[in-house]
Amino acid sequence: MAHDKSAVRKILDQAKAAGRSALTAPEAKGIAEAYGIAVPKEGVASTAAEAAKLAARIGYPVVMKIVSPQILHKTEAGGVVVGVKNAEAAQQAFATIVDNARRYNARATIDGVQIQQMLSGGQEVIIGAVTDPAFGKLVAFGLGGILVEVLKDITFRLAPATRADALSMLDGIAAAEILRGIRGAPPVDRESLATMIGNVSQLVADFPEVSELDLNPVFATPEGATAADVRVMLDFKPPVVRYRPSQEVIVRQMNRIMKPDAVAVIGASAENGKIGNSIMKNLINGGYQGAIYPIHPSADSIMGKKVYKSVKDVPGGIDVAVFAIPAKFVAQALIEVGEKKIPGAVLIPSGFAETGNVAGQEEVVSVARKYDIRLMGPNIYGFYYTPKNLCATFCTAYDFKGVTALSSQSGGIGMAIIGFSRSAKMGVSAIVGLGNKSDIDEDDLLTFFEQDDNTQIIAMHLEDLKDGRAFAEVARRVSKKKPVVVLKAGRTSAGARAANSHTGALAGNDKIYDDVFRQSGVIRASSLRELLDFARAIPVLPTPKGNNVVIITGAGGSGVLLSDACVENGLPLMAMPPDLDAAFRKFIPPFGAAGNPVDITGGEPPTTYQNTVRLGLEDARIHALVLGYWHTIITPPMVFARLMAQVVEEMRAKGFVKPVVASLAGDVEVEEAAEFLYQHGIPAYAYSTEIPVAVLGAKYRWARGAGLIPPL
Amino acid sequence: MAHDKSAVRKILDQAKAAGRSALTAPEAKGIAEAYGIAVPKEGVASTAAEAAKLAARIGYPVVMKIVSPQILHKTEAGGVVVGVKNAEAAQQAFATIVDNARRYNARATIDGVQIQQMLSGGQEVIIGAVTDPAFGKLVAFGLGGILVEVLKDITFRLAPATRADALSMLDGIAAAEILRGIRGAPPVDRESLATMIGNVSQLVADFPEVSELDLNPVFATPEGATAADVRVMLDFKPPVVRYRPSQEVIVRQMNRIMKPDAVAVIGASAENGKIGNSIMKNLINGGYQGAIYPIHPSADSIMGKKVYKSVKDVPGGIDVAVFAIPAKFVAQALIEVGEKKIPGAVLIPSGFAETGNVAGQEEVVSVARKYDIRLMGPNIYGFYYTPKNLCATFCTAYDFKGVTALSSQSGGIGMAIIGFSRSAKMGVSAIVGLGNKSDIDEDDLLTFFEQDDNTQIIAMHLEDLKDGRAFAEVARRVSKKKPVVVLKAGRTSAGARAANSHTGALAGNDKIYDDVFRQSGVIRASSLRELLDFARAIPVLPTPKGNNVVIITGAGGSGVLLSDACVENGLPLMAMPPDLDAAFRKFIPPFGAAGNPVDITGGEPPTTYQNTVRLGLEDARIHALVLGYWHTIITPPMVFARLMAQVVEEMRAKGFVKPVVASLAGDVEVEEAAEFLYQHGIPAYAYSTEIPVAVLGAKYRWARGAGLIPPL
Repeated sequence: MAHDKSAVRKILDQAKAAGRSALTAPEAKGIAEAYGIAVPKEGVASTAAEAAKLAARIGYPVVMKIVSPQILHKTEAGGVVVGVKNAEAAQQAFATIVDNARRYNARATIDGVQIQQMLSGGQEVIIGAVTDPAFGKLVAFGLGGILVEVLKDITFRLAPATRADALSMLDGIAAAEILRGIRGAPPVDRESLATMIGNVSQLVADFPEVSELDLNPVFATPEGATAADVRVMLDFKPPVVRYRPSQEVIVRQMNRIMKPDAVAVIGASAENGKIGNSIMKNLINGGYQGAIYPIHPSADSIMGKKVYKSVKDVPGGIDVAVFAIPAKFVAQALIEVGEKKIPGAVLIPSGFAETGNVAGQEEVVSVARKYDIRLMGPNIYGFYYTPKNLCATFCTAYDFKGVTALSSQSGGIGMAIIGFSRSAKMGVSAIVGLGNKSDIDEDDLLTFFEQDDNTQIIAMHLEDLKDGRAFAEVARRVSKKKPVVVLKAGRTSAGARAANSHTGALAGNDKIYDDVFRQSGVIRASSLRELLDFARAIPVLPTPKGNNVVIITGAGGSGVLLSDACVENGLPLMAMPPDLDAAFRKFIPPFGAAGNPVDITGGEPPTTYQNTVRLGLEDARIHALVLGYWHTIITPPMVFARLMAQVVEEMRAKGFVKPVVASLAGDVEVEEAAEFLYQHGIPAYAYSTEIPVAVLGAKYRWARGAGLIPPL
Repeated sequence: MAHDKSAVRKILDQAKAAGRSALTAPEAKGIAEAYGIAVPKEGVASTAAEAAKLAARIGYPVVMKIVSPQILHKTEAGGVVVGVKNAEAAQQAFATIVDNARRYNARATIDGVQIQQMLSGGQEVIIGAVTDPAFGKLVAFGLGGILVEVLKDITFRLAPATRADALSMLDGIAAAEILRGIRGAPPVDRESLATMIGNVSQLVADFPEVSELDLNPVFATPEGATAADVRVMLDFKPPVVRYRPSQEVIVRQMNRIMKPDAVAVIGASAENGKIGNSIMKNLINGGYQGAIYPIHPSADSIMGKKVYKSVKDVPGGIDVAVFAIPAKFVAQALIEVGEKKIPGAVLIPSGFAETGNVAGQEEVVSVARKYDIRLMGPNIYGFYYTPKNLCATFCTAYDFKGVTALSSQSGGIGMAIIGFSRSAKMGVSAIVGLGNKSDIDEDDLLTFFEQDDNTQIIAMHLEDLKDGRAFAEVARRVSKKKPVVVLKAGRTSAGARAANSHTGALAGNDKIYDDVFRQSGVIRASSLRELLDFARAIPVLPTPKGNNVVIITGAGGSGVLLSDACVENGLPLMAMPPDLDAAFRKFIPPFGAAGNPVDITGGEPPTTYQNTVRLGLEDARIHALVLGYWHTIITPPMVFARLMAQVVEEMRAKGFVKPVVASLAGDVEVEEAAEFLYQHGIPAYAYSTEIPVAVLGAKYRWARGAGLIPPL
């Protein structure tokens, strides 16, 4: 159905002219109709015969109401008849209503009787729209009544929502089953509901001044959906326009910043313990091969590098300037950076918005805008980009190159990321501190990492999104190619309060973050350790080609816990086909368990693990393996680890490339075995049945979101 | 209200005599009334005047229905009038009903008109009872309609339920808020609902043949609660009687088994690699000081110990016999154990029920019953009891004595427990394998550990409970004194299927386990790693004296995540009183954040941590501290760790004993610092904000359940 924008524009202009912040009921109904949102059909009849004709056109049953400017309390006046079921009743009701009205007020002008479609039955739902400070227009869907009010069973999507988004909302609530029909009730018409969701989302996207909209209740039946009531709130304030270069410009800027050929260190120092000294050391000792220009007002040379008084004195071009000077000197130095046409500044200093110095930060940002400089920070540790051996931080250089890019809003969490990564020997392409995010934000990073061939997964800690909509748009595109994992802090209201006191961040409604992340294909981590585990494991695991997961376990007890974990992580345990079951049985003792988990039992030699895992990798119906190892004298941990690495490598060479994870139950030697397996492409964990399955589940969530394997 | 047991007995006896497995509606109503469960008031009137009189006594509105053996379809016959509101209407309805009935069937005998209280309004709820194979009689409560059916929003308690149990059920559902009145609706009468729950639970407890009972719906109003419909299912099969010695006998038996003065090893061996050899080595090399009697048909001496052909040849008494012989020889050897009057047998061999040899296991159990021997296993690794340096297992001896007792149903999980414990240097009193649980079960262990002064916390992995009721009864008592932590595997249906294939366990409805654990004060762990983390941390943490938790953090970002974790773990962040806030502010930079978290900011020297933590420990209003450390050059990890250990020790010496946990964000050195802190009474975790809070949360759950601190 085409949307009648001009009709809506006219109604909104009227309301604006009248200085109103809400539409009247007829106006609201009018814009709903202009966007194809079904509302109760109605009309006014002047005679009994006309009433019956109108009612027939609308469809019985109808509600009939007196229309008279003098009669406000229609029910009191006997001017309402509900449940009118046929022509005879309609004619009778017309007469009754008019009689009653005359009796009630003999002098009332009677304009006629309103005939309105009577809605009832079906399922009451709510469709609405809100304007979120971070994400802008969002469309919402929930069931009516207590399910929304008490259980907060509601789901959001960015507006405009695609057809697929709208349909996904119907399954996005806990009580989704109700829409499919329970207790003998017929299912509602999903297509009509999805259309209505789509229309609402398009309406608020087309008209930003519609700040809130409620269709409540909507009666959803097997035949369609009708909004019984429409409420529209308005806000004519122009939306805040955020600075946002085009994606091409961001790519160009970020490539110069992240992969610079020349770096200036403003505030470089020869003095041990100074941040400007740490940065110089990390650049030089980290092995960075580009030009390094220390900037200092008086020194001649620092660590063998010629010193300049200003970036403007440097003869060649500079890609990025790293700041290690006190906050109060930053703005002036940034002007010189601008005059030198350096495209990026890494603002390590603190003392800006996070300490209440909002004006100082705004000043710096305005200098940056004037000279077209992108700012990282302030109040950060800096960043690593390992393919260039670049350590532009005051932390120590990072040793393990790899494909995982990480970022953090908080410096403390950044340190935890560095520590974990180093401890786990996680291969990293970049670690970036975003701090106050005065300019460069997660979406800039995503845009850079998307096209960075050295990065295959992006893992981010964040407390807020200054421009959630930009993030979601970019994430939706990037996550189709590379997994994006996010730990969103400030989930709870207490956490959100702490986030406020930390960076002045306005933590949004967590449910909105949750839904938008899902809509954007972002994998949400529920804890810091999970973020780190996901960041480490996801790039190690090959992408599965389908949903069939099989557990092969030596420990029956692990099999039970691994099964629990599979269910919790949305990993369907494949129903074992009889021939495959028979094939597995050939390798295991007669009392081993059939089906899935394949329980090879505890006392088995290495060959049993070898044979069953090889079969699991070979058979095309199986898409992923979860291994449960039980430490025994017959198959010691390192024997198991070496053998599994060998089998997986052998099968990968033959083209059988599948994700395999392992849970190791045993004495302390299993820690070494887990490490070995991990280094050989099998994420493995000692003393845990849940983490291996959680990381496999994360890979699956990504692959499903990216459309690489079918949804469940 | 007194319960009329004889009335119930009479009704049940009638049904039994008639061979029925359900009660008729009047019978069901009869037993409900006998137990004080309000049902709609009703009576039969023979005249119009009588109808009005009866209706007045019942209270308007009423429903009126024809009573005639010939008229089954009352509505069709025009024999039902609902919503009768006054005497006039009642008389009129009587006439109408009788007229209609005569017209419908002129030959029908008309016995009168039934007058029944008409229930409506209020909130529809469900109260019921079921018989669970593990837990026996359970009472259930939920809201009516879709909340139970779609969202499974229902809660269970063991029957009979105490008043406190019953009241806790009203808050035990997700939609609890509805009962308190929402959208302007008045709250329901909680006392009436609790009374009804109590009566139902007492009824099924008193009459085990009532296998299922449904009050659905119950109309709960501000004035009371009335069950509109009562359904009762019967099962007259006598309940399975489980072998269960008295608590005193269990204590005596278990003390001899767990703390033996003399151990026989049946199947002891001198041959390396044999289980009977490993056990001998572990007993001797583990440092066990009691008598060790190797039993073997032909050897003279094993590891310097004289060998006997049978336990019956041993001159002295024996407390426990450890079996290391094949399954098929166990029954015969067990007879000799019985004849020797040894009270306990540890059955390490597999090859019993878990491989399908159910008969073999039953044979062994019947021998044990005949001779009054308690059996551990079969199909286990054995057990450790470190205070006696006793390692009656084929695994390696355990080094770190402490107060944590652990058990596992699965051997593989047992190995993971041993590995984790050793790796984490967790102080352990006992590790016990329960395997097939042919006899000794979790409740026997709980009964032993309750009175074992060497044990302060019990952590158990289990897949099923053979006698859930016995477990719950014992756990409820023990958990008041010592924390009981349980990892219940087979939570999901897939997990439960795996549990079936593993030990033939019938995994119960997980929601029932969840509710009964809570009712029994058991702390449920959600994963293997969580079980182990809880087992390690809970005994290290002192019991808090109140609910006020304060976060002190150097990393603002950690503060946000720690706040999230506190909310998720039911730890209320104390609202900071102004004087305390001011006191904290004296120690932190002006831009540090006020309130809770106390954000001391990242660049602070050790003294800032010291001063703030000391204040947190000193002030009586604060009951627990969560520390967020941020690795900096100014306060390196080990400096922080030593200082915190010192402050906590100093304050404990002064009588300020409070739980303190720490989250360490930093480079790899934080791992050593975390270890140091842990060894000094502060559970600390590198790269995690969630685990420290989760373990503190577990301690709180226990303390609240045990009544040591007020509920929230």
